[in-house]
Amino acid sequence: MNESRVVGQVRIVGAGLLGASIGLRLRAAGVDVIVDDSSPSNLNLAIDYGAGRAARDTDDPALIVVAVPPDVTAAVVATELTAYPDALVTDVASVKVAPLAELRAAGADTLRYIGSHPLAGRERGGAISARADLFIGRPWVVTPHDDIPTAQISIIEDLVLDLGAVPVIMSAEQHDSSVALVSHVPQVVSTLLAKQLLRSTEAAISLAGQGLRDTTRIASSDPELWVQILGANSADVVPILRDFRDDLDGLLTALAAPAVPGARRAVAEVLADGNAGVARIPGKHGQDRRFSQIVVMVDDRAGELARLLTEIGGIGVNMEDLRLEHSPGAQVGLAEISVLPEVEDRLIADLEAGGWKIAGAWR
Amino acid sequence: MNESRVVGQVRIVGAGLLGASIGLRLRAAGVDVIVDDSSPSNLNLAIDYGAGRAARDTDDPALIVVAVPPDVTAAVVATELTAYPDALVTDVASVKVAPLAELRAAGADTLRYIGSHPLAGRERGGAISARADLFIGRPWVVTPHDDIPTAQISIIEDLVLDLGAVPVIMSAEQHDSSVALVSHVPQVVSTLLAKQLLRSTEAAISLAGQGLRDTTRIASSDPELWVQILGANSADVVPILRDFRDDLDGLLTALAAPAVPGARRAVAEVLADGNAGVARIPGKHGQDRRFSQIVVMVDDRAGELARLLTEIGGIGVNMEDLRLEHSPGAQVGLAEISVLPEVEDRLIADLEAGGWKIAGAWR
Repeated sequence: MNESRVVGQVRIVGAGLLGASIGLRLRAAGVDVIVDDSSPSNLNLAIDYGAGRAARDTDDPALIVVAVPPDVTAAVVATELTAYPDALVTDVASVKVAPLAELRAAGADTLRYIGSHPLAGRERGGAISARADLFIGRPWVVTPHDDIPTAQISIIEDLVLDLGAVPVIMSAEQHDSSVALVSHVPQVVSTLLAKQLLRSTEAAISLAGQGLRDTTRIASSDPELWVQILGANSADVVPILRDFRDDLDGLLTALAAPAVPGARRAVAEVLADGNAGVARIPGKHGQDRRFSQIVVMVDDRAGELARLLTEIGGIGVNMEDLRLEHSPGAQVGLAEISVLPEVEDRLIADLEAGGWKIAGAWR
Repeated sequence: MNESRVVGQVRIVGAGLLGASIGLRLRAAGVDVIVDDSSPSNLNLAIDYGAGRAARDTDDPALIVVAVPPDVTAAVVATELTAYPDALVTDVASVKVAPLAELRAAGADTLRYIGSHPLAGRERGGAISARADLFIGRPWVVTPHDDIPTAQISIIEDLVLDLGAVPVIMSAEQHDSSVALVSHVPQVVSTLLAKQLLRSTEAAISLAGQGLRDTTRIASSDPELWVQILGANSADVVPILRDFRDDLDGLLTALAAPAVPGARRAVAEVLADGNAGVARIPGKHGQDRRFSQIVVMVDDRAGELARLLTEIGGIGVNMEDLRLEHSPGAQVGLAEISVLPEVEDRLIADLEAGGWKIAGAWR
């Protein structure tokens, strides 16, 4: 039984985490999925995992998904356009302007190519980490160009919908400048911050709290992949980093002479701008002022957190978000629970009546 | 019944979140706690909340805790040293060198003053957010100076232990350089990153993922408090920020001409240094390579997460950490669970058998 929107064979080139995850999901929907990879062992692994079948001479794919590293994306797309002159080709690389420009420079048939980019996964793990549900609920940017017919764009949107993701249409230029701001620059900043820890003493780093953990988490990303992403999107990343650097220089001037008239005001304005910037991020997370945060102490024992959440469910309160914090060496964790402000007082009272210790609460 | 280590009356000056939380905990242990605040309404609120009693002419405190903003800490400590010539005085400000230097310059009796700093709370909310358990399991730095007798230091350590925190002894200079690195510089970097979002389009910011949320979370901190902290610790913050700026300039040079020989290698080395820096942070969090991460889809319904955790408890697996991720507009959340690698396969198999969808897994 075929439950997919996409019609015909789908050929996936590159059997890593993204490629294999796409294959798993499409096959589950009844699609005839072909997988290919320049590495025979990667390919066999992906086939063993059920991501698709090996290519045959008689293949006639309607749609080809190129899921290879950014550096080689354009070359592989060009090869596929030539090898399958009736197929529509997309790719899933984290940058979109550079591959299109390379394809144009190479004289490829770009009217059969529409780039795309799922904001999903962590680019870790290869086929062994692939999951059919990797893309569910994630934005997936589709970047039409020139006068690509609507019918062609719809085929890519159908693929995105088949994979459970949310299609977002923008130009390649818009995509690259957007991810430069929300993904690539944060990666650079987190990396540079984590780099400063190399000069730290053990004593200093033992004082690390949740703020340092959060700001440096993505600094553990794969350098090989990020060299390619940053190199390919440098035109969009560099201006934002220069603005950041100029703001940093301004702050450094103020902090180097904090007693000079105006210095404090300059620092305060940057801090207020940071407040305003973070308030623009949509979603449910901690900084969202619409919710009250309640911090509950949870013993570091199996089952304690489940017991807490069951109790909250029993009280009839819907939890909007949950964060766990640990202190090194402590036998307790802290669960920060976000709820609607109107239920805060009742939840605290009921939890305390149930023997839970509340370590803090605020709006 | 008195269960405290500290002996005699404790006077707390400043009835905000920290001062009131200290009072609540000490009173619960049977200590005679006096609270004072320059604002009568703050003071009455703290007394109503049970943080202590109002001052009397006959008070004879053995220990005074000054819990006021950094800018006025030294002045308030000096006043207290004069008003109570037999008391030992500590403070809880986030900087330690500046208050001590100010006290010395003012000719205060610094042999009765030992600065300290609990790495706890979020400096939000005032007495209304105070909790007796705010400090449990948190590091609390104690900064002896000159030839302060061991017996005096022990009194502050007893206070820290009474509050459930973990005393960490270091000099004021060590403290300030440590928190500059693990707290103040991350605050500045997160703020400057969030500031760049002010120039973003709605379309760009709609692509924000967990990486941006994590790196900018602390950018929502209180500007008024942070102006004081950064101003007081600028001598330690500025050199680290300059190193950061120099690293950023190096990266900008490489990214501005990514095709130049050596540019890619320079970028890769910074990324690898970031990996090495973040690996130095102790604790249980996401980047900890000792654990496997399993991502489970959880319907956005009350009780679903509790059901998942109960099931994991039933399987007999101990969860090392838990993170929730949300995608804007999606009806599902993702729970990222950290477990020991040896139980990963069994947990995945058992959860899938129980009908849970696994969205990813990696080490």
